[in-house]
Amino acid sequence: MASPLKRLLIGRPLKSSEAGEQKLGKLKALAVLSSDALSSIAYGTEQILLVLVAVSAAAMWYSIPIALCVLVLLFALNLSYKQIIHSYPHGGGAYVVSRENLGKNAGLVAGGSLLVDYMLTVAVSISSGTDAIVSAVPSLFPFAVPIAVFLVIVVTIINLRGITESASILAIPVYLFVFSIVVLILTGIIKVLLGMDATHETASIGTHVQGVTLFLLLRAFASGSASLTGIEAISNAVPLFKKPQAKNAAKTLTIMATILGFFFLGITVLAFVYGTVPELKVTVLSQIAENVFGRNFMFYFIQATTALILVLAANTGFSAFPLLAFNLAKDKYMPRMYLARGDRLGYSNGIITLAVGSILLIILFKGKTELLVPLYSVGVFIPFTLSQTGMIIKWWKERSEGWHKKLAANLLGAIISFTVLIVLFLTRIDSVWPVFIFLPIMIFVFHRTRSHYIKLKRQLRVDESMDIDVSDFKGNVVIVAVSDTTKVVEGALKYAKSIGDTVIAVHVSIDRMQGKEFVERWNRIHPEVRVAHLYSTYRSISEPLMKFIDTAKQKADHDNYSLTVLIPQFIPKKGWQNLLHNQTSLMIRTRLMMQRDVIVATYPYHLKE
Amino acid sequence: MASPLKRLLIGRPLKSSEAGEQKLGKLKALAVLSSDALSSIAYGTEQILLVLVAVSAAAMWYSIPIALCVLVLLFALNLSYKQIIHSYPHGGGAYVVSRENLGKNAGLVAGGSLLVDYMLTVAVSISSGTDAIVSAVPSLFPFAVPIAVFLVIVVTIINLRGITESASILAIPVYLFVFSIVVLILTGIIKVLLGMDATHETASIGTHVQGVTLFLLLRAFASGSASLTGIEAISNAVPLFKKPQAKNAAKTLTIMATILGFFFLGITVLAFVYGTVPELKVTVLSQIAENVFGRNFMFYFIQATTALILVLAANTGFSAFPLLAFNLAKDKYMPRMYLARGDRLGYSNGIITLAVGSILLIILFKGKTELLVPLYSVGVFIPFTLSQTGMIIKWWKERSEGWHKKLAANLLGAIISFTVLIVLFLTRIDSVWPVFIFLPIMIFVFHRTRSHYIKLKRQLRVDESMDIDVSDFKGNVVIVAVSDTTKVVEGALKYAKSIGDTVIAVHVSIDRMQGKEFVERWNRIHPEVRVAHLYSTYRSISEPLMKFIDTAKQKADHDNYSLTVLIPQFIPKKGWQNLLHNQTSLMIRTRLMMQRDVIVATYPYHLKE
Repeated sequence: MASPLKRLLIGRPLKSSEAGEQKLGKLKALAVLSSDALSSIAYGTEQILLVLVAVSAAAMWYSIPIALCVLVLLFALNLSYKQIIHSYPHGGGAYVVSRENLGKNAGLVAGGSLLVDYMLTVAVSISSGTDAIVSAVPSLFPFAVPIAVFLVIVVTIINLRGITESASILAIPVYLFVFSIVVLILTGIIKVLLGMDATHETASIGTHVQGVTLFLLLRAFASGSASLTGIEAISNAVPLFKKPQAKNAAKTLTIMATILGFFFLGITVLAFVYGTVPELKVTVLSQIAENVFGRNFMFYFIQATTALILVLAANTGFSAFPLLAFNLAKDKYMPRMYLARGDRLGYSNGIITLAVGSILLIILFKGKTELLVPLYSVGVFIPFTLSQTGMIIKWWKERSEGWHKKLAANLLGAIISFTVLIVLFLTRIDSVWPVFIFLPIMIFVFHRTRSHYIKLKRQLRVDESMDIDVSDFKGNVVIVAVSDTTKVVEGALKYAKSIGDTVIAVHVSIDRMQGKEFVERWNRIHPEVRVAHLYSTYRSISEPLMKFIDTAKQKADHDNYSLTVLIPQFIPKKGWQNLLHNQTSLMIRTRLMMQRDVIVATYPYHLKE
Repeated sequence: MASPLKRLLIGRPLKSSEAGEQKLGKLKALAVLSSDALSSIAYGTEQILLVLVAVSAAAMWYSIPIALCVLVLLFALNLSYKQIIHSYPHGGGAYVVSRENLGKNAGLVAGGSLLVDYMLTVAVSISSGTDAIVSAVPSLFPFAVPIAVFLVIVVTIINLRGITESASILAIPVYLFVFSIVVLILTGIIKVLLGMDATHETASIGTHVQGVTLFLLLRAFASGSASLTGIEAISNAVPLFKKPQAKNAAKTLTIMATILGFFFLGITVLAFVYGTVPELKVTVLSQIAENVFGRNFMFYFIQATTALILVLAANTGFSAFPLLAFNLAKDKYMPRMYLARGDRLGYSNGIITLAVGSILLIILFKGKTELLVPLYSVGVFIPFTLSQTGMIIKWWKERSEGWHKKLAANLLGAIISFTVLIVLFLTRIDSVWPVFIFLPIMIFVFHRTRSHYIKLKRQLRVDESMDIDVSDFKGNVVIVAVSDTTKVVEGALKYAKSIGDTVIAVHVSIDRMQGKEFVERWNRIHPEVRVAHLYSTYRSISEPLMKFIDTAKQKADHDNYSLTVLIPQFIPKKGWQNLLHNQTSLMIRTRLMMQRDVIVATYPYHLKE
């Protein structure tokens, strides 16, 4: 368990009482929880331009009004999530909000979407980060997928070490990224204002462009809304904050939304004034940086911090997924193992599940970001819509002071989110269809899981008020499965005699001659123990044994005797040596336990060399 | 075990006494054992031409003398292996021959090379077969690796069904391939002889070509010798033949060598007279077929049968690998599990190991045949050289009648094989270096495995002549690990009381409050059983339990009591439900068994719903 490798990677175990120390201050929380949202600017503007450039370069000016619409959405979501944070200081986000206000199935739709979405967050962020690295060092190109997988593993280990430590590691790159983008935007704007750079606008704002339809503009808007993925992370993670938790979380959310809005607008405006057109191999952000700085230190600095923050964006998923899994497991919709804290107080099982899921996505989609993004947006806007609709219901039911204003904010958010969702379904159905498969499956599994746990509890419950009336066994029968006359068998027999009133040895042979020889040898060495010899026509050891045990079990039940099957097993000194022994005893043990109503005991004999 | 799916795929189990029915006649054996060797012509000539064309098209005529040299090698190997078949009618091939005549390490080098080589056989053949399929249907190109993996799985299932059945399935395509190549060669030669086709010879035989060195010619020869991979399969598989085994095997070998020689020479001559030059996307064989027939039915027929026989060539590996593994396991160099016959009398573990290994190779090399071929040749010519050297030693030692002739044949074979090997090492070291890593590792593992089995036997042996003197236990202590007060625990306690003189319940809690509540509840329900409450600071259930058991064990040993740890466990009705329960009891059981000297018993409680 406490293997040296595990200790080296994960660190010493922490006591449960050390849990309090792991809370986050506002600045650290910003680093841990905002990298996903902030890193979206690396591809958000580009998504809008990609839709517009399909019409013509002259249509690019529409990116400015579209960006303003995205900002309105951002503003609405910020207001809405602040209200959620204050109303639900124990965290849970879309899942809890939807469940409490819209019913459990709405909650499960939100929760299921988010679980998959966090995997997509990790997959998308790490893939884009890898793309950035690979663009810088093209010789690494053939290893893009292994690099992405390696990065997921690194982030996983950091998270298994625990929250505060990961924040310390991750804070610096986030601040560097924020710094570099601020410098980029300010320098760019100043240069343009001073007329130091010729502007290369593709067309002035307001030009009428042939072929631009409302549908196209909506599609561009929906694509651009990918910039807003990740802003829900804070509301899910309120319990991670230092006290006062809700207040700190709300403030952090506003700081993040402000930075995000400024960055997004700044990048979009610069893209417009520099006449940037999306290219296959160079990102829009990188083109802008080159326009502003040329290929000097700042250009490479921006490339590097962008790559870093994209990799770190994955960390948002690692903070949020285990908490959501915890909430679902608490309601019995997910396996109990998601309730347990690991050695370092993080919810290790959630962390590991997320890592495995996102690695599978990376391998499945061969690390191609563009294929994952639409699915990712849908997975985000389903819970956005649900949680805001839930808040509307809540305000309406409560009608506490100032409810009009709150309801209006959530209504605006809900309408815009729902519109984005509809547009995504209408214009991107080729990419987002898997949602219609995995969501119903997940909800089915959630329900089956819960009903299993409920049935289990009912079956196992002991009624304390009733008198316990179990008649004792009259005696014990022990069947010892023997393959040879060895020291292991001798020890096992000694034990069997000590607990059993009747001891029977049973031997299965696949060769009649050898079987006969064995019985003769047995009777010489252990004349006091009866041996049953079973010949197996089909070379299976377990089949004849099962039948023998079934007969013995009937007789034992009839006599009110207990029945124990004792399996002698030698334990090699070194782990690898287990590979050298055919796993018959393991198979027999598992099969007996799963399929038969007998006690299965193992007598171990530890080898010395 | 006997799952319906397994029955559907593999068929009903066969009795051990049905083993005799599974023997092969000469024609069926030819189909099962020769597809590897015969399919080599699909790439053998091409390997020679690839080396020559690197100098100039004029150098192509050298392919004819080189092909004649390969035929000499084929002739020598045929003679040599016939002698091996007669001298070793129980099979074993290079491993047995080398071990008996050159010592065990030479045997292990041969055996280790062959084990890896059979995996390469499967990987190379299936990859080339997939290439042929993908060339025919280019839209399948992105799925080449999954297709190859799927094909390996299909061949694996066919082999798990058993030898004779697989021969029936596989015989027809081999005969069709032989038929189609015969038609190709005869038609081609007749057309050339009748002057119906203009010959496009690149240069006439004997032309002096600048840049052709002895080294280059040797390299071309070594590359072309890849055509001879697979001819050793028959000598390894003598026991699969109907009686008289050796005679039938030897005849089959000669038939195979004759066909192979005819095909190889025919293809090489046609390639020369049609002036065929290797191309990236079209194989030499396919170019010849197009030249001879045009794109008519016969062209596609040849493509199809070539693809099929390449896939089936993998089958040679599936026939030979399990037998070799069996021989190595009999000598304790490999795990015992390779000795066991499966439901259908095939050595299932060998078959499955081979399948897994070759699938890994396909994935690792992304199904690229050309990267695997040099390694494959080395892996073949190491055992060729060793077994023929072994035969020389044997004839020299025995000096029975006519030994001069026999020794001369083997000497010729050994010298040529060794030369090929040296040339491969000198000219292809960039591809074949892994041999120097995996061979020493394998030999190390072989020795470690054997020494483990020998030590094991010594430790477990019971000396029958000595009186057995084990004092009986004075009594039994049973520790019941309990997590809650459920019906499972009640049943377990009843059993514990029936076998134990002392019964102690032990409960580990990760929350002090809950632990206290549990103890109170326990004392209300089971006042007769003492409960030990352990609080786990680090949230691990097994750590405190282990310490408690260690203390109890010391006391039990001191009193000469046995110590049983009883783990109550409920068994869900359906397998998938096991996923929903944290695997603590499994972990505790495994850890106790591996690390502690106590009897571990499981009390199962089967859920009804």
